[in-house]
Amino acid sequence: MNQDYIQPDSWSIIEEGFNATRVKSSESLFSIGNGAMGQRANFEEDYSGTTFQGSYIAGVYYPDKTRVGWWKNGYPEYFAKVLNAPNWIGIHIYINNEVLDLNTCESISNFRRVLNMKEGYYKRSFQATLANGLEIAVESTRFLSLEMDELGAIRYKITPLNGDASIVFTPYLDGGITNEDTNWDDKFWDTLSVSESKQQAFIVSHTMKTEFNVCTFMESQLFVNETQVTQQPTPILKENYVGLQYTVTVGKNETASLQKYGGYTVDTNHNAENLVAAAQETLAKGVSLGFSKLLALQKESWATIWEMADISIEGDIKAQQGIRFNIFQLNQTYLGKDARLNIGPKGFTGEKYGGSTYWDTEAYCIPFYMATKDQKVARSLLEYRYHHLEKAIENAEKLGFTKGAALYPMVTMNGEECHNEWEITFEEIHRNGAISFAIYNYVRYTGDTTYIPEKGLEVLIAIARFWHQRANFSKAKNKSVILGVTGPNEYENNVNNNWYTNYIAAWCIQYATAQIQNVSERFENDYVRIMNKTKLSKAEIAQWNEVASTMYFPYSESEGVYLQQDGFLDKELISVAELDASQRPINQKWSWDRILRSPYIKQADVLQGFYFFEADFSEEQLEKHFDFYEPLTVHESSLSPCVHSIQAAKLGRMDQAYQLYLRTSRLDLDDYNNEVEEGCHITSMAGTWMSIVEGFGGMRVKDGQLSFAPKIPSQWESYTFKINFRDQVLKVYVNQTGHTLTLEGTKELEILVNNVPVIVTPNKEVAL
Amino acid sequence: MNQDYIQPDSWSIIEEGFNATRVKSSESLFSIGNGAMGQRANFEEDYSGTTFQGSYIAGVYYPDKTRVGWWKNGYPEYFAKVLNAPNWIGIHIYINNEVLDLNTCESISNFRRVLNMKEGYYKRSFQATLANGLEIAVESTRFLSLEMDELGAIRYKITPLNGDASIVFTPYLDGGITNEDTNWDDKFWDTLSVSESKQQAFIVSHTMKTEFNVCTFMESQLFVNETQVTQQPTPILKENYVGLQYTVTVGKNETASLQKYGGYTVDTNHNAENLVAAAQETLAKGVSLGFSKLLALQKESWATIWEMADISIEGDIKAQQGIRFNIFQLNQTYLGKDARLNIGPKGFTGEKYGGSTYWDTEAYCIPFYMATKDQKVARSLLEYRYHHLEKAIENAEKLGFTKGAALYPMVTMNGEECHNEWEITFEEIHRNGAISFAIYNYVRYTGDTTYIPEKGLEVLIAIARFWHQRANFSKAKNKSVILGVTGPNEYENNVNNNWYTNYIAAWCIQYATAQIQNVSERFENDYVRIMNKTKLSKAEIAQWNEVASTMYFPYSESEGVYLQQDGFLDKELISVAELDASQRPINQKWSWDRILRSPYIKQADVLQGFYFFEADFSEEQLEKHFDFYEPLTVHESSLSPCVHSIQAAKLGRMDQAYQLYLRTSRLDLDDYNNEVEEGCHITSMAGTWMSIVEGFGGMRVKDGQLSFAPKIPSQWESYTFKINFRDQVLKVYVNQTGHTLTLEGTKELEILVNNVPVIVTPNKEVAL
Repeated sequence: MNQDYIQPDSWSIIEEGFNATRVKSSESLFSIGNGAMGQRANFEEDYSGTTFQGSYIAGVYYPDKTRVGWWKNGYPEYFAKVLNAPNWIGIHIYINNEVLDLNTCESISNFRRVLNMKEGYYKRSFQATLANGLEIAVESTRFLSLEMDELGAIRYKITPLNGDASIVFTPYLDGGITNEDTNWDDKFWDTLSVSESKQQAFIVSHTMKTEFNVCTFMESQLFVNETQVTQQPTPILKENYVGLQYTVTVGKNETASLQKYGGYTVDTNHNAENLVAAAQETLAKGVSLGFSKLLALQKESWATIWEMADISIEGDIKAQQGIRFNIFQLNQTYLGKDARLNIGPKGFTGEKYGGSTYWDTEAYCIPFYMATKDQKVARSLLEYRYHHLEKAIENAEKLGFTKGAALYPMVTMNGEECHNEWEITFEEIHRNGAISFAIYNYVRYTGDTTYIPEKGLEVLIAIARFWHQRANFSKAKNKSVILGVTGPNEYENNVNNNWYTNYIAAWCIQYATAQIQNVSERFENDYVRIMNKTKLSKAEIAQWNEVASTMYFPYSESEGVYLQQDGFLDKELISVAELDASQRPINQKWSWDRILRSPYIKQADVLQGFYFFEADFSEEQLEKHFDFYEPLTVHESSLSPCVHSIQAAKLGRMDQAYQLYLRTSRLDLDDYNNEVEEGCHITSMAGTWMSIVEGFGGMRVKDGQLSFAPKIPSQWESYTFKINFRDQVLKVYVNQTGHTLTLEGTKELEILVNNVPVIVTPNKEVAL
Repeated sequence: MNQDYIQPDSWSIIEEGFNATRVKSSESLFSIGNGAMGQRANFEEDYSGTTFQGSYIAGVYYPDKTRVGWWKNGYPEYFAKVLNAPNWIGIHIYINNEVLDLNTCESISNFRRVLNMKEGYYKRSFQATLANGLEIAVESTRFLSLEMDELGAIRYKITPLNGDASIVFTPYLDGGITNEDTNWDDKFWDTLSVSESKQQAFIVSHTMKTEFNVCTFMESQLFVNETQVTQQPTPILKENYVGLQYTVTVGKNETASLQKYGGYTVDTNHNAENLVAAAQETLAKGVSLGFSKLLALQKESWATIWEMADISIEGDIKAQQGIRFNIFQLNQTYLGKDARLNIGPKGFTGEKYGGSTYWDTEAYCIPFYMATKDQKVARSLLEYRYHHLEKAIENAEKLGFTKGAALYPMVTMNGEECHNEWEITFEEIHRNGAISFAIYNYVRYTGDTTYIPEKGLEVLIAIARFWHQRANFSKAKNKSVILGVTGPNEYENNVNNNWYTNYIAAWCIQYATAQIQNVSERFENDYVRIMNKTKLSKAEIAQWNEVASTMYFPYSESEGVYLQQDGFLDKELISVAELDASQRPINQKWSWDRILRSPYIKQADVLQGFYFFEADFSEEQLEKHFDFYEPLTVHESSLSPCVHSIQAAKLGRMDQAYQLYLRTSRLDLDDYNNEVEEGCHITSMAGTWMSIVEGFGGMRVKDGQLSFAPKIPSQWESYTFKINFRDQVLKVYVNQTGHTLTLEGTKELEILVNNVPVIVTPNKEVAL
């Protein structure tokens, strides 16, 4: 781990003491979001030290012109990037004519940040001595409302401790913001209008090229000791900027506070002409509710989320803090309310990876959302890809595929491919398999029989077509092969017969074939419609299955394992444990060729296949493969430890499972990858959830039936999680001596526990 | 081919008729150079149409900051780029107050360009009708002096044909030039001073970062009908610009002409403070000699070059024109006078590939220079790499190699790596083999026993060390393997056990070992010095040879051929002939993944090994491999057809050899690759020479003895070439009925002709 300053707490993330070198890291960790927008934990007041400013609006992006060294045919023209949006949180503060700036004040004490995850707000407090000798206490509380998701609120309190203070608050909006992540230093935003009226101000701007229109808005109220002070502020208008200046004088130990309401209205949700009016409406509602009521509603909203999604761990506060941080961030990022949105790898906590959609969603996030939300949320995530099917077909056409074959993009905002490394963009095609697998996984878990005939089957067909065309027949092997791919382990590029890719390719064909059969038998209208639309013939399906049934899977008789790819055993198989620590992380120490010819695995690859298709292999096989591949795995992807933790737990290696769990759950809090400044790893947080529910809890769904095999790390007293299974909620409690199951629902449920059927009756605890 | 407008001529390149769409192509083809500088065939007068301006100074480059999409550890910080240098050729021309501009004048007739390769000058002539109705005849002659290689000369003649003409000539220097090839639109040049005095003008400027100081200079003389007119020109000074304005009026059919002398003095050859003085000295000498005398000297210099280097072909004027164009351009690019210089793939004809040094020099150019120049020239090319050895060792260290192992850069100007594609920069390591092979080839040809003990052995040792470390032992294969490479066929990346790479790696170790032994026996002082310097032990040499002796060479029993790499037979082996023409060139039609998984070969790979190490294989083996690989070869590298042509000739497939010869020799004239606008393919031109001398002539050196196996395409009556072999010149004449050998030298020579020993006595023709 690279940092250790977060105070252990079961429900909060806490930083104590001011340290300028931690500012950017804490700005990531203390980020807030409400699914529609997000805000890094930047200070409201001026700060002249090093900071990474970020306020993000879900779905608002900029197509940044691709930058490459050497162009390859088929590269996308642009990378869709999440945008740092106009600043609505800022408040310039002058006290007795001195600017409040933690980088320049005389001294700071009792600096404390708290991200209250239970209630969904972020509070910062400190005392400072200004150059003019005045001592002040400051407390700032901020949240983005779940109730009103265009609105955020700030309460900023200043109390002079050793004298009177004349305080000038200038809450402002600033449209003159930039992105750190930019290819060509383009101007991303253009301001259309800046206006103010009474206590309110508005900046209407639009993004360049994509032409998203956004109104950034604010309204403020001034208080002295709880009592509102009516004051007409002085407006300050500049290019891209509007401030409203309030002046108040308070005596020693009196408190001046500013309550600022702000946020964004966007033309994806309103008519472009009505953005200011919509903002006014939002402000009117928000201000009339007031800060305290909004905060109370916020607590209620989060209580509802936690009621379903919480995992409690007794006896290990760091593990507890880790899992809640992960669940909290996932819910801050995506709540499933808007089918146009998805889950960016950094959520609303940074710019990196462009806030775009990766296979992370299908491979890691779907199980979390299926089990902790209404199943419509997971369906909505599937529909996101259904709506991108046309573009995935176009993407495949660009690469030479025909007849409606689809290749889903590696990285996307609107269905178009964004990424521009040939070894990833063109070759990391296993992502296509995850799209099909997620459909299977969803149906398996939810029992929703309508998604495939209505939407999913078209996706399954287009993906099966891709694999059929992408494979070729090797006369030398007398098998179908898939050449030139990058597997989930991105520390190998352009390899032949990546076992995982070949396996999921064959599976996609077989699953599509089975589902065509199923739809033809049970949903005749859909079947006819889809066959007409896709022009799919029985002959073509037979050709697909010729490929699937002759698929080549590299295997070593001597090692008794499937090989990650052709030629894997030619490598020098020296385990990670034997590597000198100074050589790691290898992605920061070694040149790319050295990484490629090494045996080191960035994230689960063969083992990812064993995770997805666990039922196809025996536990002995799993153990053999785990013992072969895990020692070669460097876990330099955030998505890596969770899969290994689940498998270690299954194999009963609880200490290893626990270490891997800590690594995934506290990846950002402890900054394992030395990059949390850039933002948190949101999508891998769903993997943390899986590590407990599927790993320690051993949850599976087999033939429509829930199954558990509960285990518990020796470091824990107990843990509890809930899952929503087909509209009933099952609570699972595990301690060192046993486990209990409690069903909140209406129908009794037969569950397998350690392969033994158990009947769970609603509202009756079953102790085992 | 993509163009067919060059008029066939045995000694000249000729264009007739003005066509604006051909301007950029002709600017490349009619380029002139003298080894120290070069000039694209840009018009002297203003031209508002599409043009690609280029004037280049050998060795003057700019380190352009690397541009990539995704950075990899080990990438170089910059790409050294050849620079478009300040313009010295420009002459603004106003006639009766109208600018002369071929893009805007009323009509153009009799437009003609001639590149006189025999005498080394470029002439352009045309008639034009101006908007004001005046008809004029223009003739411009230009050359870069071989005698005075800082100097170029232009004679620009204007004759009004239907009335009087008041002509304003403004010869100028322009430092406000840019590169088309730039990563970040940096400013490459900074002007330090602009000055003029009497008929002369100077711009002193320096390159940014590299700080090359350059004085661009000119002096002009005005003539009416052969008679010099003394006139003090009006100076026009602007930022980065100086012009000297001359005005003259001539009557109908009288000729006004301007003779302009110009060029560059550079601080690589003079003290930076003396650049203007050096320019004045050069101008004084050049002007006193005068245009005609300089041109006469130019003809003499080229006669000397042709005397040794010419290849004449009777009965096939296009083939004749092709080979002379190739020999001419090679000599314009590199004459071996300056050991700091090398041969850029585009020479002085364009910016692309940065004018930097590639393995092309060692693999393709050395044989040409060995055989057509004093052998010191080839030695100088070897020494270029010797001088870069330290940097090649540093380059290897960056990639994790130790103990003095060297990896020569893929692309370089000063010994540092410039290229930034991981699959090339880090993986196309076979280039290291070519550096060793060139030493072997040089010693084999010249019999120079001193180069290896004096310099070459250190290079051989450092390269052997690299291969030893780069290979690893595969337990699975029980062999040494080399994983993750790109072979000469760049349409494969990150492959395992590229046969060519493995073969040359083992050879490098064995050759270094043999030369260490040789030096230890015959050059004791050098041996002791080198062993001390390199700290090489017997044990290390033994370790190298353990790798060489256990090297794995992929082979197919069923096909009876060595495989280009592991897994090659898994591809769909559809021949190029079966590919739809619309799919080619594949590098412009297909995405990179599709190219990679296809079997198509960009340039000789296994066959490159059969070319280098021909003696290691039987003719039956060559035939088998040629028949396997040639049908899969798309020849989308300029370096490809020559090797295949040589091998086709060896196999007696003369029609195929001839077609491949035409492709290599007229690659640029007929623009096979649809890119001649960007510049000519200089290094592959040496391959054209090899196609005749080694291909049709069958020249080899075996155990110090010259050997020939002359053949002739049915399309030719005869051909003649000369080679300098160990300070004697052998002329080889081949016609359809036989061949003759004539030795210009002092010692009789035993030669093998079709494996039969023949004694050639000086100055006596031997007919066979």
